[in-house]
Amino acid sequence: MKPENVVLSDDGKSVVIIDQTRLPNRVEHLTLNSPEHFYDAIRELKVRGAPAIGICAGMGLYVLANLSGADDEDSFLEEMRRNASYLDSSRPTAVNLKHALDRVAQAALSQRGKGTGAMLEAMRNECISIQKEDMFICKAISEYGLTLVNDGDGVLTHCNAGPLATSCYGTGLGTLLLGKERGYTFRVYTDETRPLMQGARLTAYELNKAGIDVTLICDNMASIVMKQGRINACFVGCDRVAANGDTANKIGTSGVAVLAKHYGIPFYVFCPSSTIDFNCKSGAEIVIEEREPEEIKTNFFEEPIAPAAVKCYNPAFDVTDAELITAIVTEKGICRYPYTESLKICKAGGYHAV
Amino acid sequence: MKPENVVLSDDGKSVVIIDQTRLPNRVEHLTLNSPEHFYDAIRELKVRGAPAIGICAGMGLYVLANLSGADDEDSFLEEMRRNASYLDSSRPTAVNLKHALDRVAQAALSQRGKGTGAMLEAMRNECISIQKEDMFICKAISEYGLTLVNDGDGVLTHCNAGPLATSCYGTGLGTLLLGKERGYTFRVYTDETRPLMQGARLTAYELNKAGIDVTLICDNMASIVMKQGRINACFVGCDRVAANGDTANKIGTSGVAVLAKHYGIPFYVFCPSSTIDFNCKSGAEIVIEEREPEEIKTNFFEEPIAPAAVKCYNPAFDVTDAELITAIVTEKGICRYPYTESLKICKAGGYHAV
Repeated sequence: MKPENVVLSDDGKSVVIIDQTRLPNRVEHLTLNSPEHFYDAIRELKVRGAPAIGICAGMGLYVLANLSGADDEDSFLEEMRRNASYLDSSRPTAVNLKHALDRVAQAALSQRGKGTGAMLEAMRNECISIQKEDMFICKAISEYGLTLVNDGDGVLTHCNAGPLATSCYGTGLGTLLLGKERGYTFRVYTDETRPLMQGARLTAYELNKAGIDVTLICDNMASIVMKQGRINACFVGCDRVAANGDTANKIGTSGVAVLAKHYGIPFYVFCPSSTIDFNCKSGAEIVIEEREPEEIKTNFFEEPIAPAAVKCYNPAFDVTDAELITAIVTEKGICRYPYTESLKICKAGGYHAV
Repeated sequence: MKPENVVLSDDGKSVVIIDQTRLPNRVEHLTLNSPEHFYDAIRELKVRGAPAIGICAGMGLYVLANLSGADDEDSFLEEMRRNASYLDSSRPTAVNLKHALDRVAQAALSQRGKGTGAMLEAMRNECISIQKEDMFICKAISEYGLTLVNDGDGVLTHCNAGPLATSCYGTGLGTLLLGKERGYTFRVYTDETRPLMQGARLTAYELNKAGIDVTLICDNMASIVMKQGRINACFVGCDRVAANGDTANKIGTSGVAVLAKHYGIPFYVFCPSSTIDFNCKSGAEIVIEEREPEEIKTNFFEEPIAPAAVKCYNPAFDVTDAELITAIVTEKGICRYPYTESLKICKAGGYHAV
């Protein structure tokens, strides 16, 4: 597998992404080479998925520096800081965005005194590293994930945490894609994931393309398929894990977790260990992005689904309480509840309990 | 309040309905006067809501008899039986459809030997009675509902069980509409209710029209609004109540009930006592209608939300287990768990425990 969703051009002067808002009906590529391009692509979910956002923003910071007219270090760094702060403000919830921007900026700062050329080279290497690491991480997460399932299992997914959201394999979908390569057969039920339909538009598209048996359901059908015994495990990605294991992910995830607990089905969260944010004590501290009512009422539709006068509440994420999560699967191993301890061991270097 | 959704014409030769598939953007009336008209209107959800379906089908049976060329009783009754069986096959889940058809047919049979004119008059009276009773029942349900809430409460609704689904007030929404008339202020959160958007298109429309504070959310946001403490009670209608209290209602209802239990929020089902089906021992016996994948993938949308090759599973209802239901509110009183006993008392004539 090779990343297709976010690609740095050879000359380092642009990033080419697949416009995820146009899938599944059209595969369109966009070339990004200005601060507004990157900001809008992230803000409008043309590139989405916490790891992919980080990769894209990191590459963006390098591309913008590469295109900069600044020839002295101070103005070069000043412009870089301004760009980093602007890109960081495009979406508030995922930790990867800030993390990637910090890494690429740090690479430049580490070359202080050696000239802007050296800074640029360090930035380029760093953002390429972030993408390569992500590929390695997703594969490792998927290997751990395969130890949690059996051939023939029914798996429920919410939102999209596949190759489009990362680089290759993905987090939540990686186990399914790697399993498919190894000859496993899964029956996957994919929540469509309102309001932006990432499950229908992206997950169903990616799994179907990979030849995996996938059935699309509306979000409110998760309860019936669980009750009917069709589901052996729930797989989701996530945007931020607090120190106590509370997890922010796409709106609706907490509901799936409550249902899974009620029906006695394991609920697994898949993420890179970089998603664990020890500065965040619990889910109560995670800022939940609230988006426009148009996403609910008019997006995708031939005509509005509700009268203009009706208000909408449109939180983009929710927080799943740690005690609802059976395990958090990272590239370093599988963490189990209570998470306060297991996440620390994981972050420190490895945790291989299964 | 006067019924507007299903109206028998003065000459008894047609029924005029509001086409609910065109709401909220257009209020269009349809005139029904052939078996296919009635069948399609019910099948395609132009008229929907278990009580409204019963009223419309009962009136339909009378209208079709009225338009019949049959002048002897036997061929008149034979044609009526054929029409009743055809209309009954339009949707499988709600008990009201069959119940109303049986009542109107029984009215004709009771006049055997008195000629088709007497049969027609009895059928007309019966179907008008069904609608009048429904109005009385909805008002009585709403009165009981008001004893369960406080002024200022946040209420979550799923699907539509308002005047459009019944005659006046509705079942699930009746408490809110009657409360509004009495000066109560509610903050209502309405699940949009995929795939057919009855919550967005009908409930938000009806509550907004009545001047009630209503906020539209996607189905998968029910968990976050409950967790945030915005919800004091959940209100739903239902299509069939089994003898043990298991309840069939719009797909997604069981998920709302599981969430309500998890967050410690009361979950109330509102229905006429005729919805209680003692021939059905438990939810396991209720036939769940499965509908077309197009409802999920293409209905309402500018373009398909998933690739053509992707399968869909589209159950129209689910069953909420009795133990998840705080109370079942009927026109005869409020039934509490365990329902095997309380539903019997209710059906027998009255149950006023609160």
